[in-house]
Amino acid sequence: MAVPRVEFPLILVNLKTYKEATGELAVRLSKTAEEVSTRTGVCVAVAPQVVDLRMVAGTAQIPVFAQHIDPVGYGKHTGHVLPEAAAGAGCSGTLINHSERRLKLEDIGATVMRAKEAGLLQVVCVDTVEMARAVAPLGPDAIAIEPPELIGTGTPVSKARPEVVSGAVDAVHRIDPEIEVLCGAGITNGEDAAAALRLGARGVLVASGVVKAGDPHRALLELAEAVRL
Amino acid sequence: MAVPRVEFPLILVNLKTYKEATGELAVRLSKTAEEVSTRTGVCVAVAPQVVDLRMVAGTAQIPVFAQHIDPVGYGKHTGHVLPEAAAGAGCSGTLINHSERRLKLEDIGATVMRAKEAGLLQVVCVDTVEMARAVAPLGPDAIAIEPPELIGTGTPVSKARPEVVSGAVDAVHRIDPEIEVLCGAGITNGEDAAAALRLGARGVLVASGVVKAGDPHRALLELAEAVRL
Amino acid sequence: MAVPRVEFPLILVNLKTYKEATGELAVRLSKTAEEVSTRTGVCVAVAPQVVDLRMVAGTAQIPVFAQHIDPVGYGKHTGHVLPEAAAGAGCSGTLINHSERRLKLEDIGATVMRAKEAGLLQVVCVDTVEMARAVAPLGPDAIAIEPPELIGTGTPVSKARPEVVSGAVDAVHRIDPEIEVLCGAGITNGEDAAAALRLGARGVLVASGVVKAGDPHRALLELAEAVRL
Amino acid sequence: MAVPRVEFPLILVNLKTYKEATGELAVRLSKTAEEVSTRTGVCVAVAPQVVDLRMVAGTAQIPVFAQHIDPVGYGKHTGHVLPEAAAGAGCSGTLINHSERRLKLEDIGATVMRAKEAGLLQVVCVDTVEMARAVAPLGPDAIAIEPPELIGTGTPVSKARPEVVSGAVDAVHRIDPEIEVLCGAGITNGEDAAAALRLGARGVLVASGVVKAGDPHRALLELAEAVRL
Repeated sequence: MAVPRVEFPLILVNLKTYKEATGELAVRLSKTAEEVSTRTGVCVAVAPQVVDLRMVAGTAQIPVFAQHIDPVGYGKHTGHVLPEAAAGAGCSGTLINHSERRLKLEDIGATVMRAKEAGLLQVVCVDTVEMARAVAPLGPDAIAIEPPELIGTGTPVSKARPEVVSGAVDAVHRIDPEIEVLCGAGITNGEDAAAALRLGARGVLVASGVVKAGDPHRALLELAEAVRL
Repeated sequence: MAVPRVEFPLILVNLKTYKEATGELAVRLSKTAEEVSTRTGVCVAVAPQVVDLRMVAGTAQIPVFAQHIDPVGYGKHTGHVLPEAAAGAGCSGTLINHSERRLKLEDIGATVMRAKEAGLLQVVCVDTVEMARAVAPLGPDAIAIEPPELIGTGTPVSKARPEVVSGAVDAVHRIDPEIEVLCGAGITNGEDAAAALRLGARGVLVASGVVKAGDPHRALLELAEAVRL
Repeated sequence: MAVPRVEFPLILVNLKTYKEATGELAVRLSKTAEEVSTRTGVCVAVAPQVVDLRMVAGTAQIPVFAQHIDPVGYGKHTGHVLPEAAAGAGCSGTLINHSERRLKLEDIGATVMRAKEAGLLQVVCVDTVEMARAVAPLGPDAIAIEPPELIGTGTPVSKARPEVVSGAVDAVHRIDPEIEVLCGAGITNGEDAAAALRLGARGVLVASGVVKAGDPHRALLELAEAVRL
Repeated sequence: MAVPRVEFPLILVNLKTYKEATGELAVRLSKTAEEVSTRTGVCVAVAPQVVDLRMVAGTAQIPVFAQHIDPVGYGKHTGHVLPEAAAGAGCSGTLINHSERRLKLEDIGATVMRAKEAGLLQVVCVDTVEMARAVAPLGPDAIAIEPPELIGTGTPVSKARPEVVSGAVDAVHRIDPEIEVLCGAGITNGEDAAAALRLGARGVLVASGVVKAGDPHRALLELAEAVRL
């Protein structure tokens, strides 16, 4: 099964367990993302709940991410997300170590490895430059930096703490220049996203700024036009 | 969305992350379960991986269980299984606290409550009579007793340690006679299942005994005929 | 080594990691507790940090509790609190499952059992009547009920939610009349403690109300005189 | 309180919860370590259980390590090891993320920082070169590499997998040349220890090889003479 390819710059929308983005509403939002992606040529991806992965991936022609996978293989595991099962459902990538789902260090390493084996692009989330430096040696495809105190605030990290973004980009690239850095936390409009890209980020990780927007299409369009420039 | 109703005696097949029961193979096995259920009149349910829940529930006319749900609600939660999302995907029930996914006591209590709110039948797994006694006051619909040292061994608890089954049934019913007790661990054939029911269990929780069977249809049929008697 | 015996009614002071109750200050506070105990005849116990256990137990002639122990035995365990080591240091009992250190259900069961083997009196903490009912079958010596929303507030559970205390006492005693119930959360003065005992509690679990009091001796004395009546 | 200084090369003996190294036996073993240290001039340190920390530190004139500390501060924390309390009890350093006590990545970072603030030397344990590379950016004083499959086997990593030791040393020093690398797992005699140092390690982390030795003094002496060369 050929899944849509993730391209950078990337707008990655975490649907969390928001009511506005569960079940059929996840599909609707993903179709909106597809329209914006088609119109602007910018890669827009969504990370729905695991239960909605296959339905979303089967409907929208955009990359779909898992919000979390477990470092397990086929076999005797109950209540875990098998990387191969996520990939088989049409998933292109996965978040790892989101601030709402922190992992043990050894599990981050094992999950990155299992995701590679299953063909899932890995976006490891961290909250500080120091943590970005710690996960870079694990060789993930991308690292998203999100100071947790700004998540959901509407105050963008690219403005409030620009040195965190540029510092993370710099630190990560010293270790491995092929890792892309995304910028999250508090990003709601085009100006925030453009600022993030000027600081070296290759995309943004957003959630409520799009999902809870009065007009998600418009919010996404503004972000996409900003990162396209 | 009307989901199939769970009836007792119940044969509940945990598909774990077995390769033979992932993706399309989960659907195929669930169709087999449906055939056996139709033929025997015995309720046969399956617990596929969360990523396969909707596809399985949309194909087989049998109750589908989640292997795990999280005690969260709509909102800012990443990488969790929202009970309402599982229910919305066609799920009838959920396992809770499986030996491969043990929970904190307070989370077991909160998950039972959230499952009730979402309309999911709850099967809480425990490994000893003492633990059965501990979870009974939380008021789940069912408790599955599985001595972990027998899981996957082919040595059935109903034979190796019958006092665990009858003891759990007795202990649970003293606290709440409406809670059904299931029997797991090592059950592979009709004789094991019949023995479990004679000890007071109202069904069985099986996994490899069916999923890894050379002929799953035959294995399930034998179990169903045994619990029907 | 003969350790002081725990008697009921009991005033149990959790020293947490409060600066006012770490190291030598833990010893000083424990000597204060000893004075109050001697003067009033009421059993007053303290739960210092593990690192301070032996020093406190070696100085004050009152029962000393661990704040947490692990369900491990002698052997290959690093960074755990061995029940036998706590007992060997002069400990009389232990808190289990405090709201700041919640455990998996199976670990609560295993810890109660290991504590019994090591000769430590067990006080399992819970936050609701339902959870009290869940841990009672595990047979601990005592259960402390602490609605977490009241901890550290100065609003005593015995006044704000008296039905939680009497409900817990009733629920626990239906299962096992030998288990003592303690009452925690928000208790700061004698009136609160007396109210708790009138509701059926056999003592109180306090922390900041004593440790952070301007005059801990006076605060403890008031509590002791109230529970003595 | 002046605590003994940690010097490299270092022999660090993890006492775990071994019966032979609990309570008074921890003191006895630490006195043995002191004798060997005095005789050879090599720094020998011990990591007893937290409950024994103060007693050991107050008796033996060698550096004492905690087996684990928590990333908490003074305040409302129950059942945690406060770094300042460990330091106040005479501790010189601490293990972090031992294979029997793995931590979340963010907690490793926070614990390293808290240990620095409390004046404790930090030895972070990892199991692979990749993980060594991940924790090096967190700036701990030392990293101990222990392939878990060799722990307690008597097959030394320095012989079975020398490339793991030299690889870790190289990887760590590229990131931060001031971090010392220790070598653990399976080391029982002087030859193993000498091999580890030839591969670039600056000491060894041992446990059963010393604690369970028929003659711990002799075992330690052999190790100390080997690393002194």
